[in-house]
Amino acid sequence: MSIKPTLHTVLSPRLLDLYDVSDSIVVVIDVFRATSTIATALYNGAEKVIPVDSVDQCIEIGKRTGGITAGERDGKVIPGLSYGNSPAEYPRSFIEGKTLVLTTTNGTKLLHMALNKGAAEVVTGSFPNISAVCRFLASQQKNVFLGCSAWKDRFNLEDALFAGAIIHEIKDHFTIHCDSSLMAADMYEMHRNNMNSFIRRTTHWHRLASYGLEKDLEYCVSRDVADVLPIYRNGDLVVG
Amino acid sequence: MSIKPTLHTVLSPRLLDLYDVSDSIVVVIDVFRATSTIATALYNGAEKVIPVDSVDQCIEIGKRTGGITAGERDGKVIPGLSYGNSPAEYPRSFIEGKTLVLTTTNGTKLLHMALNKGAAEVVTGSFPNISAVCRFLASQQKNVFLGCSAWKDRFNLEDALFAGAIIHEIKDHFTIHCDSSLMAADMYEMHRNNMNSFIRRTTHWHRLASYGLEKDLEYCVSRDVADVLPIYRNGDLVVG
Repeated sequence: MSIKPTLHTVLSPRLLDLYDVSDSIVVVIDVFRATSTIATALYNGAEKVIPVDSVDQCIEIGKRTGGITAGERDGKVIPGLSYGNSPAEYPRSFIEGKTLVLTTTNGTKLLHMALNKGAAEVVTGSFPNISAVCRFLASQQKNVFLGCSAWKDRFNLEDALFAGAIIHEIKDHFTIHCDSSLMAADMYEMHRNNMNSFIRRTTHWHRLASYGLEKDLEYCVSRDVADVLPIYRNGDLVVG
Repeated sequence: MSIKPTLHTVLSPRLLDLYDVSDSIVVVIDVFRATSTIATALYNGAEKVIPVDSVDQCIEIGKRTGGITAGERDGKVIPGLSYGNSPAEYPRSFIEGKTLVLTTTNGTKLLHMALNKGAAEVVTGSFPNISAVCRFLASQQKNVFLGCSAWKDRFNLEDALFAGAIIHEIKDHFTIHCDSSLMAADMYEMHRNNMNSFIRRTTHWHRLASYGLEKDLEYCVSRDVADVLPIYRNGDLVVG
């Protein structure tokens, strides 16, 4: 009988260094909205998504690559960039064959931390691409860390709920001795049949809905509408 | 109409510095078993409990005060100390009128962090003294932080569940915009009617039950069996 790999859930980037992620797969989760937008752009034919953590870097890489620069602050496109963080801005008719240079804070920080700590693979996960992520994790025979990007390092409900949704699908493939994972699975079980009312309770909903982004947020909890696996390769997220 | 104070839940000591706890009440929670033992010793007449974070300090303070030194590692009394971490070791017939010098790691670290960051009051909470804690929090008109001691900074289920139990009792007195608190309250609602089976799922249960401490852990989720308020005053925890 083969030994199952382990699965842990990390509730904030601030907690990542409590774990040894070397030779493991880290799933970066930023449900509202970075990882949902990344999956959508790649599903719609973007050549790659370059995640960056500063506006200056976004502009510089945009110039060098001819890529589309994107990023928001307080619900508006950041001055100097061209587009926002909404998945709805990246239909196939616009993004196919292009490079998207995306400024995010929470998600990009976690991604770079995971790489610096020696993760074997970094992929991004969201409800729009949940099945692609689950298929990959179940097939690799490697330890898995579900990394919640959180909000300024504070725990958030939607990233934990997505971790729980992954665990619900693939738990039989892993050994799970991790209270964060048990909690995430419980939260998913409790709310899976009323996701749209659940997300209206989150602090993130109250922040973003005040900018009129309700349709975005409902898209971000829709399963498999952009079912590709974004995987990190030499600075880029590409379809795995 | 008066403005309600805020309530936040902090899921790990590692996350405490994301919050401004000055002029606030911090509740240190270490359900298995430090804060349950502290409440029990004070309820049974201990003059005070001195929480310390190292064995050397425990021995030194024990000598200076004539107090009872206590601490465990891997389910056994630490060499050089006299008693363990079990609430069952501190009945009235033994502890009344005495000083308990208690070595803990997770809980004491959080307590000292809260003091260093300027908390107005630090109290300790556990199921055995939940009503005393709730009465105090509801009466003070101060912001509250429910601080989970966690395990080596990793999230644990039992401390979050206790935070949820407090929120269940006193939520009407506070403004709560905090996903950690919403999660804790959900987890409590989900498990409140089957606590004894719930605690058997936690990683802490599996760690401690292997040392034969099942009765201890069941005591630690019993409500109001030691209903006093341990409050920090000049290095000591005393009945508030």
